[in-house]
Amino acid sequence: MVNFFANGSDPPFHRRAHTIDEENGLDPSFHRQAHTTDKEVCVVLVLLFTWAHLPYAPPSKAELLDCTTNSPWCTTSRNRNQLKPNLLRNPTRHHHRHTSDSPHHPLDPLTIQEINKVRSILSSHELFKSSPYALHSVVLEEPEKPLVLCWKKGDPLLPRKASVIARANGKSHVLTVDLQTSQVIRHATDSLSGYPTMTIEDMTTATWAPLASAKFNRTIIERGIDLTDLACLPISTGWFGKSEEKRRLIKVQCYSMKDTANFYMRPIEGLTVLVDMDTRAVVEISDKGRNIPIPKAANTDYRYSAQNIYPELKLLNPISIEQPKGPSFTIEDEHTVKWANWEFHLKPDPRAGVIISRAMVRDPDSGELRNVMYKGFTSELFVPYMDPTDAWYFKTYMDAGEYGFGLQAMPLDPLNDCPRNAYYMDGVFAAADGKPYVRSNMVCVFESYAGDIGWRHSESPITGMEIREVRPKVTLVVRMAASVANYDYIMDWEFQTDGLIRIKVGLSGILMVKGSPYVNMNQVTGQENLHGTLLSENVIGVIHDHYVTFCLDMDVDGSDNSFVKVDIQRQQTSPGESPRRSYLKATRNVAKTEKDAQIKLKLYDPSEFHVINPSKLTRVGNPVGYKVVPGGTAASLLDLDDPPQKRGAFTNNQIWVTPYNRTEQWAGGLFVYQSQGEDTLAVWSERDRPIENKDIVLWYTLGFHHVPCQEDFPIMPTVSSSFDLKPVNFFESNPILRMPPNVEKDLPICKPAASA
Amino acid sequence: MVNFFANGSDPPFHRRAHTIDEENGLDPSFHRQAHTTDKEVCVVLVLLFTWAHLPYAPPSKAELLDCTTNSPWCTTSRNRNQLKPNLLRNPTRHHHRHTSDSPHHPLDPLTIQEINKVRSILSSHELFKSSPYALHSVVLEEPEKPLVLCWKKGDPLLPRKASVIARANGKSHVLTVDLQTSQVIRHATDSLSGYPTMTIEDMTTATWAPLASAKFNRTIIERGIDLTDLACLPISTGWFGKSEEKRRLIKVQCYSMKDTANFYMRPIEGLTVLVDMDTRAVVEISDKGRNIPIPKAANTDYRYSAQNIYPELKLLNPISIEQPKGPSFTIEDEHTVKWANWEFHLKPDPRAGVIISRAMVRDPDSGELRNVMYKGFTSELFVPYMDPTDAWYFKTYMDAGEYGFGLQAMPLDPLNDCPRNAYYMDGVFAAADGKPYVRSNMVCVFESYAGDIGWRHSESPITGMEIREVRPKVTLVVRMAASVANYDYIMDWEFQTDGLIRIKVGLSGILMVKGSPYVNMNQVTGQENLHGTLLSENVIGVIHDHYVTFCLDMDVDGSDNSFVKVDIQRQQTSPGESPRRSYLKATRNVAKTEKDAQIKLKLYDPSEFHVINPSKLTRVGNPVGYKVVPGGTAASLLDLDDPPQKRGAFTNNQIWVTPYNRTEQWAGGLFVYQSQGEDTLAVWSERDRPIENKDIVLWYTLGFHHVPCQEDFPIMPTVSSSFDLKPVNFFESNPILRMPPNVEKDLPICKPAASA
Repeated sequence: MVNFFANGSDPPFHRRAHTIDEENGLDPSFHRQAHTTDKEVCVVLVLLFTWAHLPYAPPSKAELLDCTTNSPWCTTSRNRNQLKPNLLRNPTRHHHRHTSDSPHHPLDPLTIQEINKVRSILSSHELFKSSPYALHSVVLEEPEKPLVLCWKKGDPLLPRKASVIARANGKSHVLTVDLQTSQVIRHATDSLSGYPTMTIEDMTTATWAPLASAKFNRTIIERGIDLTDLACLPISTGWFGKSEEKRRLIKVQCYSMKDTANFYMRPIEGLTVLVDMDTRAVVEISDKGRNIPIPKAANTDYRYSAQNIYPELKLLNPISIEQPKGPSFTIEDEHTVKWANWEFHLKPDPRAGVIISRAMVRDPDSGELRNVMYKGFTSELFVPYMDPTDAWYFKTYMDAGEYGFGLQAMPLDPLNDCPRNAYYMDGVFAAADGKPYVRSNMVCVFESYAGDIGWRHSESPITGMEIREVRPKVTLVVRMAASVANYDYIMDWEFQTDGLIRIKVGLSGILMVKGSPYVNMNQVTGQENLHGTLLSENVIGVIHDHYVTFCLDMDVDGSDNSFVKVDIQRQQTSPGESPRRSYLKATRNVAKTEKDAQIKLKLYDPSEFHVINPSKLTRVGNPVGYKVVPGGTAASLLDLDDPPQKRGAFTNNQIWVTPYNRTEQWAGGLFVYQSQGEDTLAVWSERDRPIENKDIVLWYTLGFHHVPCQEDFPIMPTVSSSFDLKPVNFFESNPILRMPPNVEKDLPICKPAASA
Repeated sequence: MVNFFANGSDPPFHRRAHTIDEENGLDPSFHRQAHTTDKEVCVVLVLLFTWAHLPYAPPSKAELLDCTTNSPWCTTSRNRNQLKPNLLRNPTRHHHRHTSDSPHHPLDPLTIQEINKVRSILSSHELFKSSPYALHSVVLEEPEKPLVLCWKKGDPLLPRKASVIARANGKSHVLTVDLQTSQVIRHATDSLSGYPTMTIEDMTTATWAPLASAKFNRTIIERGIDLTDLACLPISTGWFGKSEEKRRLIKVQCYSMKDTANFYMRPIEGLTVLVDMDTRAVVEISDKGRNIPIPKAANTDYRYSAQNIYPELKLLNPISIEQPKGPSFTIEDEHTVKWANWEFHLKPDPRAGVIISRAMVRDPDSGELRNVMYKGFTSELFVPYMDPTDAWYFKTYMDAGEYGFGLQAMPLDPLNDCPRNAYYMDGVFAAADGKPYVRSNMVCVFESYAGDIGWRHSESPITGMEIREVRPKVTLVVRMAASVANYDYIMDWEFQTDGLIRIKVGLSGILMVKGSPYVNMNQVTGQENLHGTLLSENVIGVIHDHYVTFCLDMDVDGSDNSFVKVDIQRQQTSPGESPRRSYLKATRNVAKTEKDAQIKLKLYDPSEFHVINPSKLTRVGNPVGYKVVPGGTAASLLDLDDPPQKRGAFTNNQIWVTPYNRTEQWAGGLFVYQSQGEDTLAVWSERDRPIENKDIVLWYTLGFHHVPCQEDFPIMPTVSSSFDLKPVNFFESNPILRMPPNVEKDLPICKPAASA
């Protein structure tokens, strides 16, 4: 183990800094001290590390990663060649073979070599020698936050550790593997309910399990479906009581893929197979929909190759975002993105999808990089369907913790998922057997210009001044698209030069539909509950909600921040005070404890929500801050005691603020699968810990109610919602005041490719 | 006068069709008949028009419009040359001299020749011979809606009429001028409170009026300001009681423009001059801010030419939306925009800014153009400031009705206000003396591609299918930017190929600030009410709201529509019914009368808001519809009895629905200036008229609470909000299913201009 004790002193924080198995993570005394004497602590820590840090030794023999010989989940880009011209322009050209990658930054994800080393270390561990096992997660165990904050480029890398979640001996294990010492330095089994995120092997295996059942095969054939036309989906069971306890269960429902790639539109309604994920045994078959026809294949296929394109279809002329001098961003050491006034660390993650860390923005006056957010990521999703019947009630997905939001992020399609100027980043993940694999083109980074305006002003003839000053708005987008079976989530982190970060969720993909005997609404009596919309003959799009909860560890000019509710309230004037009877007044209320920051948004009782640094003031004395600007909001209306809502209780409020705790990252709990809701953000927040002038974490939930409509059939046009993190008295003044306007001579000269 | 009586028949609607001076506009019997027998009525009407229509005779001598000899409000583009390359590519090349323009469509705005003709007709009218007068509005009087709906390209043009609002003899007059017969066919004086929209001459004159007062000049000099450094603004007074009755008043406040173009940041605080707009007399001077210093000029100028650009400023590489084969839209006859599956009529308007009419979308299956919206425009704005003190209480702007939202729309800045592929449209308006003038480049139309995704789906390794289908999202934007003195409003109508219309308001420009003795917040005691934020030394950004109310005359597949509230409510399950305790159910409630459609949005009691055509069903029996999708919502919290809120009562709800009535267009009333609120949308709606299966009009208000922050100084980065009109069971299925993906070979080949 790394030894921190170098100079005989024994400050209280040293003891804890590398023992991370307490539930509350870092000892608060460490943090307090780190804040008050930042520089000294950093010097001490750096000395300690220099002394203690063993040079990182790459494995003597570079192992070659080959998609064909490693994991089946390894993906390659089908359009790799299309990327070349653009990547050549990019000074940080992307390496697509990751076998020789090495970490450069304390937050860099595990490399192929490191994942292989973890596997090798674990293979000699007691636990994994004695029984079959599956690794559900192998990711970097991030170093303690104060160490990362001290680290600067050029410093020796912080000790590399892996955090492993494994199933073995019928239990879930959480292990920390020290890559320097090749030892397992922590091993815990969790006592709470719930299971780890499924492996892709779990999901795939489940889809085939029903075929082992003669009863299942018989009912499929009796419904007139050829077994070779069968497509089945693994559906998380949720938790509804004792029957979901003490074994890992999954429900499998099937579709006919005859005559369409869009089998989702051809459900074999009412047939649900309960499978034990560990034994692969069929536990129960519920077969209630035999009277419901399987909807027709006609008009369901969405692939371009399957369309009848009428010659009269009017096509748009080609349109493209062009940057003849190349993009303005660079990506250093594979993960550090630098663009305009922004700098941040970006990595793919199997559970969160994308993690943004150490987001800093350059002050236009001092030129300094200033901290904005230590870490931001999609913490959990909650997608309850609104049909209480047998084949539907359990559909209350938590896509990050159950399926792995990053695991489901497929390679992006160049020129369509991202524009031509995009840079693509691969994910390197571990399969259930511990073997690394590459998810290529999983994340893209690009500059966007939609023709929008950064700021403007014209003078009018009233003043007679000849002024027209306008600045174009260019942004940097980080994008991922996760296809969690039928649904596609497009996740954007958009950085603006004015300091704003927009976090946008786009919903597309394919609806989860229900087979129905109805072919027309005239067969439906007024009072009947369809639980959705008749989209096509025999197809009902079932009503559902989407909640996407973001963990935003804000560090506004330092870690110790406060959450301020700026309440906007009507103030009545006193008689004779003013011809006005009323006006609005903004009152600042600093949240003292967590319960002060459990926020339900109210249109008629509005507030702004600031994260400020109370010890850093602007020149005229306002505390520097960022505010969360809510958007696209829907609230969960389910009964608070409904089992799905207890598990998804992190959606009980739109905003929460918690004190930083490195174990509190996953809003639905670390082990979400079949969990009972004991480890959610709502439970943590009820502790009502102090949050004033502390290292605090902001949580925001974007919500959507989705009542399907026919336009969503057979594939949904994207619906988007977003919220913003926006500087509020963070800068002394408009940070893009000095930005130049566009002029003709800087813009490209283009010609159609066909005439080239 | 045009005679409709051609064939001896005397159907009840003929009598009314061209007599439009009833408050309720069209006789309901006309409309009913027009709907039930659309085709016959159209045939009859066309025959009548053919018979009655005199060929439109252009004036014998084409008058040349010259900016220098006509109106001072005439504007030219300073960047005209920059437009050329792009316009040449555009098949509908823009004519920038409008002297020979002639109308082609019944809704085309008045041409220069027509405005000149109106002036000539009025000059011989009794009213204008006998006294000095000012024309406050000269616009097309749109033909009756059923006539416009019947009209097809190639048909003779409908009779052209002008609607004129004039001040003469101390009264406001509303006149209809028939351009065929050269007669004034209607003349009314309005009995309600309020005055017409100010002319630009009113505003300009007011700013100079205080200089006639020795007292005013003395106080300016005593405050140390050179009179040549003075810049004054005309501020609408609002209405607060008797003192604002029976004469047209305006308040003038002044600023020092010494050492900065941004005089708005240098208020001469507390000095308010009340001016009679008709006599130009100074009525009253309130001088209460002598102890408040004028804020410094340093760091207030926002012009690029005034910036110190540090050499280390990192600039972005050029970025541009490129369409080497040109834009995909055409503009026929100057005003009909055709793009992808959309077609609509577009015109600048002095009050509304931009009017979209006859928006139709092509059905992908039948190929037919289907009606969506008859007319959509910004009806009114309400911008109350939240400071009840003497120099601020009255700032409760209604920018469309008081200042003219279109009158304040200055020429757009090519390459910055709109991207390179934009087409620019000029406005042709009338000055107070009736002379036409051209507001060049007032509106732009362009295709936007931000790198977003129209729809997508990938299959994951779970199903093992190799599918990745993604379609890029390209939209068409119609943009205008109004600079109402300090503030800039960017108004976008964005049309999507999936049938969605996004209406977006961007706020930029310059804050209205208050001078203050404070230079630092440490001088402010906790309880003190600043009414805003200290932005810089001696500068307070005062809290204010923005409400932008849109009139949306939806005609979903025809004029007779219903408004349906689809309520999303929790449904508890019965004991034993389901492992679930609750789910959400959507219940459709058709609004019978206006009060059923007075909607306050509620996060915890949500609904969807559909405008449907109850007599047009999809194949599976859903009524076709469009829904309004609220966004960026803030509600006015002022006391309902506060005079500003009575005048701005159209913001009392976020959504309203009224029966179509051609006189109910302006949500704050026709005469908003100093109005008392007797003619607002709220008053109309209280009549509680039937709205089920009628020609209905939807009203939506976008709201913003703006608590200023230092980033808004000295000019504000754009803040945007939007709402959508979205097809809901309007199409049988996804209307962009057959759209092709982007492929490399279609995209342009570009090089930097510098190397050209």
